[in-house]
Amino acid sequence: MPETMRATIFIEPGRIILGEKPVPQPGPGDALIRITTTTICGTDIHILKGEYPVASGLTIGHEPVGVIEKLGSAVTGFTEGQRVIADAITPAGWDNASLSGCGAQCGAGTAHGWKAMGGWRFGNTIDGAQADYLLVPDAMANLAPIPDGLTDDQVLMCPDILSTGFGGAEAGRIRIGDTVAIFAQGPIGLCATAGARLMGAARIIAVESVPQRVAVSRRMGADEVVNFTREDPVAAIDRLTGGRGVDVAIEALGKAETFAWALKVLRPGGTLSSLGVYAQDLTIPLQAFAGGLGDHVIRTTLCPGGKERMRRLMAMVAGGRVDTGALVTHHFPLDRIESAYELFAHQRDGVLKVAIRP
Amino acid sequence: MPETMRATIFIEPGRIILGEKPVPQPGPGDALIRITTTTICGTDIHILKGEYPVASGLTIGHEPVGVIEKLGSAVTGFTEGQRVIADAITPAGWDNASLSGCGAQCGAGTAHGWKAMGGWRFGNTIDGAQADYLLVPDAMANLAPIPDGLTDDQVLMCPDILSTGFGGAEAGRIRIGDTVAIFAQGPIGLCATAGARLMGAARIIAVESVPQRVAVSRRMGADEVVNFTREDPVAAIDRLTGGRGVDVAIEALGKAETFAWALKVLRPGGTLSSLGVYAQDLTIPLQAFAGGLGDHVIRTTLCPGGKERMRRLMAMVAGGRVDTGALVTHHFPLDRIESAYELFAHQRDGVLKVAIRP
Amino acid sequence: MPETMRATIFIEPGRIILGEKPVPQPGPGDALIRITTTTICGTDIHILKGEYPVASGLTIGHEPVGVIEKLGSAVTGFTEGQRVIADAITPAGWDNASLSGCGAQCGAGTAHGWKAMGGWRFGNTIDGAQADYLLVPDAMANLAPIPDGLTDDQVLMCPDILSTGFGGAEAGRIRIGDTVAIFAQGPIGLCATAGARLMGAARIIAVESVPQRVAVSRRMGADEVVNFTREDPVAAIDRLTGGRGVDVAIEALGKAETFAWALKVLRPGGTLSSLGVYAQDLTIPLQAFAGGLGDHVIRTTLCPGGKERMRRLMAMVAGGRVDTGALVTHHFPLDRIESAYELFAHQRDGVLKVAIRP
Amino acid sequence: MPETMRATIFIEPGRIILGEKPVPQPGPGDALIRITTTTICGTDIHILKGEYPVASGLTIGHEPVGVIEKLGSAVTGFTEGQRVIADAITPAGWDNASLSGCGAQCGAGTAHGWKAMGGWRFGNTIDGAQADYLLVPDAMANLAPIPDGLTDDQVLMCPDILSTGFGGAEAGRIRIGDTVAIFAQGPIGLCATAGARLMGAARIIAVESVPQRVAVSRRMGADEVVNFTREDPVAAIDRLTGGRGVDVAIEALGKAETFAWALKVLRPGGTLSSLGVYAQDLTIPLQAFAGGLGDHVIRTTLCPGGKERMRRLMAMVAGGRVDTGALVTHHFPLDRIESAYELFAHQRDGVLKVAIRP
Repeated sequence: MPETMRATIFIEPGRIILGEKPVPQPGPGDALIRITTTTICGTDIHILKGEYPVASGLTIGHEPVGVIEKLGSAVTGFTEGQRVIADAITPAGWDNASLSGCGAQCGAGTAHGWKAMGGWRFGNTIDGAQADYLLVPDAMANLAPIPDGLTDDQVLMCPDILSTGFGGAEAGRIRIGDTVAIFAQGPIGLCATAGARLMGAARIIAVESVPQRVAVSRRMGADEVVNFTREDPVAAIDRLTGGRGVDVAIEALGKAETFAWALKVLRPGGTLSSLGVYAQDLTIPLQAFAGGLGDHVIRTTLCPGGKERMRRLMAMVAGGRVDTGALVTHHFPLDRIESAYELFAHQRDGVLKVAIRP
Repeated sequence: MPETMRATIFIEPGRIILGEKPVPQPGPGDALIRITTTTICGTDIHILKGEYPVASGLTIGHEPVGVIEKLGSAVTGFTEGQRVIADAITPAGWDNASLSGCGAQCGAGTAHGWKAMGGWRFGNTIDGAQADYLLVPDAMANLAPIPDGLTDDQVLMCPDILSTGFGGAEAGRIRIGDTVAIFAQGPIGLCATAGARLMGAARIIAVESVPQRVAVSRRMGADEVVNFTREDPVAAIDRLTGGRGVDVAIEALGKAETFAWALKVLRPGGTLSSLGVYAQDLTIPLQAFAGGLGDHVIRTTLCPGGKERMRRLMAMVAGGRVDTGALVTHHFPLDRIESAYELFAHQRDGVLKVAIRP
Repeated sequence: MPETMRATIFIEPGRIILGEKPVPQPGPGDALIRITTTTICGTDIHILKGEYPVASGLTIGHEPVGVIEKLGSAVTGFTEGQRVIADAITPAGWDNASLSGCGAQCGAGTAHGWKAMGGWRFGNTIDGAQADYLLVPDAMANLAPIPDGLTDDQVLMCPDILSTGFGGAEAGRIRIGDTVAIFAQGPIGLCATAGARLMGAARIIAVESVPQRVAVSRRMGADEVVNFTREDPVAAIDRLTGGRGVDVAIEALGKAETFAWALKVLRPGGTLSSLGVYAQDLTIPLQAFAGGLGDHVIRTTLCPGGKERMRRLMAMVAGGRVDTGALVTHHFPLDRIESAYELFAHQRDGVLKVAIRP
Repeated sequence: MPETMRATIFIEPGRIILGEKPVPQPGPGDALIRITTTTICGTDIHILKGEYPVASGLTIGHEPVGVIEKLGSAVTGFTEGQRVIADAITPAGWDNASLSGCGAQCGAGTAHGWKAMGGWRFGNTIDGAQADYLLVPDAMANLAPIPDGLTDDQVLMCPDILSTGFGGAEAGRIRIGDTVAIFAQGPIGLCATAGARLMGAARIIAVESVPQRVAVSRRMGADEVVNFTREDPVAAIDRLTGGRGVDVAIEALGKAETFAWALKVLRPGGTLSSLGVYAQDLTIPLQAFAGGLGDHVIRTTLCPGGKERMRRLMAMVAGGRVDTGALVTHHFPLDRIESAYELFAHQRDGVLKVAIRP
């Protein structure tokens, strides 16, 4: 094992570089992973643009696929050399939030046991995955062996995008026979579409305008795709549902406008499942909200983590239930990650997700 | 049975009078109830002030206690002379919303089967209960016999206030051990407090400033009452919970400010249960909402109706689980209902609820 | 409309005949349906064999597809001539059980409001569907218009088989990523398999031995089919799951042995969803039940009914989510229904379901 | 800290002695607790009688109250000298079952991640609490600080009895307005009664014959207590509920007969929550089970553990919601634990629970 490694480092807003860092040493409960494939997330672009603050010098990235290089002294149940993924959100397992089934809000180090987004550590509060090596904390709760026969690319979406997208469908409590609207068909929205289909939605109406995304949306399970640049999506969904509205609306963009649209197309008693990362206060329109008397539910979801979640998602891939292959549109070596950021940040060349290989 | 009766009629904003109307005749599925006790709701004051629009000439009121005077030809299972209540919200039972367990949004007459607040008919879309007689539609779904030994006053809160208040606790999915904050301790907030206690909250923090309401709040189950006129309630609850926040926050006022407060005191993963009737768009503060990543739930509730709900609530009263006696602070004969409106609208004399007897 | 009609009548155990009866007249809340297609259920065979008692002279059958011939005077929202189905289980809507979301146990006529299987009326407590005409009680709660473009055969499974089979998957609370075992692949088990797939099971292991059913099972979504005549199904599932057991087991046969198997393959914390109609006491094996300490759930389901359920199921068919076409293996005119019973009772000729057309 | 300590050791069926063992040393993730109070559980009596097998030489007991003596090197968030309890069932937190919210079935050391009762370690698979010192594994997940002002006796029931009893009420999914029957009013049944009351049951019918337990049952919340030695409890509950049956039945004894009773008094659609530890196969009576068509639910519960559960239960005690003081009928020093076993095993002198102090 070398002493230093390449790492994708946030310097300041507008500047993420490939630099060099020491290879970290695992503490008793950690595992050191040699990254074989990782990817860039929309959140990383928020970091790049300075819209989401992280410390200067931090290694970015939270979607690791790799091989166990070294296990901490207290870690059992895994072996070095094993192919694994770790979840983007790494609950401690032993904290109050995890023990309540909400490990994404793990406030492991806090007095009160809950902290908003506390489970998101990689590339946020500790060094992340866009590097040669990654230190995984609470390894026993967060390492998930890759089933035989699955490639890195097949499981690359599990740590974040697939878990989040499915989480949006799950938070919508979609039931057999539901009509579902999904706003935006970026990688997370596409996985939400797949999730809605997998949970038994009778009809899925996606809202998207980019032709490539529209095409992938249909492959992932959308029955209709409304182009919001050509028609008012609220009016369109009202028309498509005969004025009934949808049972579940999923927001997968993170804008106040789409949040309001999602509420406006919802039937009384329906659920708005929100996946977006918002950058401003949101407005709840009075009428769409029936003045507070519509028996509506709004539920937000941070990517569910933990090794059991990863095991389940990889079982879905292994069982042929979902194919996220169409989402990986580009491949880059780690050395060219700055170019990958350039491409991804500007959404060029029909990019959905890029696979980065050290 | 006389041919005409007294009825409390909405004429125009600012003007509700006691007038005269023909006693209605029940259709096949209806029941005619002779009202023995009814009450005035905060919503009626919204109607009086023109803040909630209803047709001129409509009889107001949706909280009926009475005696079955005459049953429609198709109604079975009840007998004339039986003491009953009917629910404020009268689901049809046979409509799609009711059959989905959401009868309050009953769109009985609509093509699509769901209509916001469609289950609220009395004093909204059909003549209401502040009269000598009341016609109950879909009587078989909405009449509930009063258990022997209970007085009118004991069950007077069941049709609306108790069902709504408990509904707020239920929508909060309160679990044994939760810490709950309840904003405003008017009649509905007080019943939400009772409901939170009944569902096993370990600690209940109410927010209220009116001394009489503070006193009743403690009787209904609040452990602490924060006076928001003396200290910032968000800061106070933060202090009381050691920075942890509450598991469930219940909004029982209907203002944008209390809605925001309720979100601000919520821990990540917590639930905001909203009971308020709002008159304006609401704002979701970005930070309290963790940018959409806090695993929060917002759930609104319209008073659950149906005879089974009424049966259950009266069983709680009969079993000594809840005593709403402290809520009925004043009594008026129907002839003096205009004075009762005067008192209630101005919240004079420590009024919580008034009992009206024809 | 003629005065008399053909009807399939239970005479005595072993004897069901095609006889003649007067065409019934709808009461105020009823609808008269002209049957265009119906089918025979396994339960009808239980009746034929005297294993389930019904009154002599009763018309059998509970799976109606037809056209509204005449509406009761109080029925609104439907038009004569409309193509509809009615659900096998017809909740009243206005009763306590329905208002609690459990209309299948509708005790409409009872003092206490709940009656085991009370919602099953057709061919059980009132005349059924294997006739030229059918009287549908509580029509407004139980008639569901057939979406344009769907044939009788496409919706013929909705009233019972599809609703029950999906109900078994729903009662299992199947989640994305679950491993599910389904015991028996008759029509209901096959629909449970389809339901498990639709709810996101990662892996479905069916247990069946009849080759035709094995083939259809794979089409409906099974990943593996264990032939219990060749190997112990408990051992086989233990092997297939690496000793882990399944998250959800569905019993779709109605034998004590399969019930015990279903419990034995269940992991701790798992759910046994039981669809079978049993004819004897069941035994819970101590060890499989972990002495009562395994956090197991056992849930039974009677076919969910009501027009909203039917609407949802037909939406699934219309959306191409499920194709029950493979289940209809034979067609008979009503005149030859006795032959159809003969074939179906003896499970000849690879029969799954027979379509009967008056 | 001494080198040896007293410990209550299982030797062979019929023989539990107070012996001597070395004081254990905490590994990195462990904590060593100095026991200040503990108690004997019915399960310990099963062990004594040889009905539940454990290894000879094992220290018995799983209900620890004490002071942190020494923390493992990797344990953070606690301080030596802190007063704590640990849960009877100690989920690892990082295992698949815990991460699925079912830590009681924690199969921490297994390949597949779930093991029936795997979370029960103290006095089952590792040394237990009836000793001067106790080693707590996965300490960060299982130590819960005692709130200021609470005595040992006040929290002594939290690790097992209260968590299990409340768990039974929770597994019954008791809702406001339910009628609940609880079979047997030993310590666990009494806590289930308290839990049913706390969750909003309108009416609680307990079944018990021992006069002292009947008296405590009423204090814990029972409205009626049926003496099954004087009347058939099924008939009695049928009479008390007017033939309606109960919404939820809780079995808290562990006999096949009470399990069957619990099913027989259940309304269609109701839930049987089973807490008993059974020693034989159970029988499900066909008719009470409605032949599998009654929409019944049977749910079993092993004592929920984890520090968050303990925190919540102690909050209930601190908030005055439950007082388990009446359950502690006797006190013994550790030196006299053999006498305590003698008393408890024979249920002499009105014993409910004994407090043991080292």
